[in-house]
Amino acid sequence: MTELARSNRVRRTWWTDATDAAGCKAYTVYNRMMLPASFGGPAIDCAHLKRAVQVWDVACERQVEIGGPHADQVMQRLTPRDLDGLAADRCAYVPICNRNGGMLNDPVALRPRPGVWWVSLADGELRLWIEGMVEAGGYDAYVREVDCQPLAVQGPKSDDLAARVFGEEVRSIRFFRFKRLPFQDTELIVSRTGYSKQGGFEIYVEEQRHAMPLWEALFEAGRDLDVRAGCPNLIERIEGGMLSYGNDITDADTPFEVGLEKYVQRFDCIGGAALKRHVSTRRLMALEMEKPVPACERLWPVKVGDRQIGVVSSAAESIEFGCGVAIGMIGRKWTAGQEVVIETQDGPKRGRLREKFWR
Amino acid sequence: MTELARSNRVRRTWWTDATDAAGCKAYTVYNRMMLPASFGGPAIDCAHLKRAVQVWDVACERQVEIGGPHADQVMQRLTPRDLDGLAADRCAYVPICNRNGGMLNDPVALRPRPGVWWVSLADGELRLWIEGMVEAGGYDAYVREVDCQPLAVQGPKSDDLAARVFGEEVRSIRFFRFKRLPFQDTELIVSRTGYSKQGGFEIYVEEQRHAMPLWEALFEAGRDLDVRAGCPNLIERIEGGMLSYGNDITDADTPFEVGLEKYVQRFDCIGGAALKRHVSTRRLMALEMEKPVPACERLWPVKVGDRQIGVVSSAAESIEFGCGVAIGMIGRKWTAGQEVVIETQDGPKRGRLREKFWR
Repeated sequence: MTELARSNRVRRTWWTDATDAAGCKAYTVYNRMMLPASFGGPAIDCAHLKRAVQVWDVACERQVEIGGPHADQVMQRLTPRDLDGLAADRCAYVPICNRNGGMLNDPVALRPRPGVWWVSLADGELRLWIEGMVEAGGYDAYVREVDCQPLAVQGPKSDDLAARVFGEEVRSIRFFRFKRLPFQDTELIVSRTGYSKQGGFEIYVEEQRHAMPLWEALFEAGRDLDVRAGCPNLIERIEGGMLSYGNDITDADTPFEVGLEKYVQRFDCIGGAALKRHVSTRRLMALEMEKPVPACERLWPVKVGDRQIGVVSSAAESIEFGCGVAIGMIGRKWTAGQEVVIETQDGPKRGRLREKFWR
Repeated sequence: MTELARSNRVRRTWWTDATDAAGCKAYTVYNRMMLPASFGGPAIDCAHLKRAVQVWDVACERQVEIGGPHADQVMQRLTPRDLDGLAADRCAYVPICNRNGGMLNDPVALRPRPGVWWVSLADGELRLWIEGMVEAGGYDAYVREVDCQPLAVQGPKSDDLAARVFGEEVRSIRFFRFKRLPFQDTELIVSRTGYSKQGGFEIYVEEQRHAMPLWEALFEAGRDLDVRAGCPNLIERIEGGMLSYGNDITDADTPFEVGLEKYVQRFDCIGGAALKRHVSTRRLMALEMEKPVPACERLWPVKVGDRQIGVVSSAAESIEFGCGVAIGMIGRKWTAGQEVVIETQDGPKRGRLREKFWR
């Protein structure tokens, strides 16, 4: 076990006192901010997430605001995803690439107001990239980090819980869409998004004065739904093939290699030329592996005989599927069913490539 | 106590196994990498640092390399410090500002080869800023993170220890200068720099194969000097007025406000226009404060009567000076000697503004 030294540099969120009080046992640091990582332990948290509903402090999903006359132009320069004609209530998963087509982040973008973008970041200070680009590129746009802190509601009972707090209209929000819904004296952006496959919402809290009232309203309303404080769950996200930037994706990987080829829709963005001529020789795959599975805090070589065919970047033990579950970057010539050996810090483990994730 | 959840996203260094083995009790995350924060506890680590010598894993000081025909031009565009005529063996502390003159980082830059810059980062992904700027600005330059991992040797016996490993020539390195000195089959850049006031060096390890041999050579050679594994020490750095980006400096602060006005030497950089017209109304100051001092993991309001005159961003208890030591951003009208109240999470503490730091 490793202790995390606290300091101002690792920023608290509006809910850190509440997650401490709710028994958060481990945190990680995400965008230089505290992100809860475990309450009852990954397996217990996972089982609860799949049957009930959880409230997650994901304030670390920092919002970068791009505004001004050239905001749309800046946004489209950032991503190969075609943003023309995107509905006003749409949340868009937007790969952002460097000049080599390498992934710099995989945020979700939405427009809180016409002509203004919020880019909800995965781990990595993409604001600096956008600011540097706008600064040197002569765009008539501004870039700033908004201190908006998202709170997620995830799990099969999310609709029921959210309806009690925001009204029945919340049920009508479609996947990757958002609405502004009333809360106390304001309206909050509520989107049907989130980092699990159990369904749910993310609520964009724009003022600290609404943060704890919202937290308390959710816990009060969800008592009989067994609502608990939770966090992105390693097991559930691997089962569902949800990628983690910094773990499974780095700037050495293109969208084609991490299964995001469908978002490469135009080439007039930064990295477009590289993406156009890119030939990928590897891809992210699911791997089943022998238990016990140690903490995956270094890249594990994946071997067939003496030959290394890739690396595992995330792994956990799944109770639901009765095996170790993992995500790895594997050479394209290797296909599902291939038996492999995964070299962990606790020794070699038998594994097998899979065509699909578990969920 | 807070547990840190480990994952690939929080990168291990070439020495993490060694710092674990040496009894590192707490880590922090710095540039998405593990940085040791405590071995025997801050007070014991501090006393040892002041009398002997320590080896610090500061691999998290990521090196951003800027090269190509426009490298010098890019570098000078980044900072208000005048880099013309900088000696080839010089390490330069370079404030980097955004268009408002706000500090984005306070790295140390050096040229490992003529025409190539390494920018040794404080916490913050400045590489993204530089890359975005180079990408959009049409510079003929490249920007990349080099996987060079610095190891620091700090403490009054640093010269003796370094001389045993690198030869007597190491003693002749002047403050903020570097030399390439032989180690095994290579030469390593050794600079007289580091994040303490106890003297010492930073060694830029460019290949993993030299990392553990260097660690072991230092511990072997320093046995009778009582060499220990250590880390940047909160107490010693506050006593010495060494600022921490993310704690004491953010992008809301200009160089004038954080005591770096002497590095504002030209205005043809990003933020230059803002710096030229900037009038600072506050400045970082040392504060003495009543003990016990809790962990400063949120900004503490500093008050005179009912009036807030600033915030404390870093604080610790000093055994050497027999008081709490702190760094705060304080309104310029308030001067040394002023009695204040500091509102910590554990209640109000009496304090006093000081003109200077303790060392």
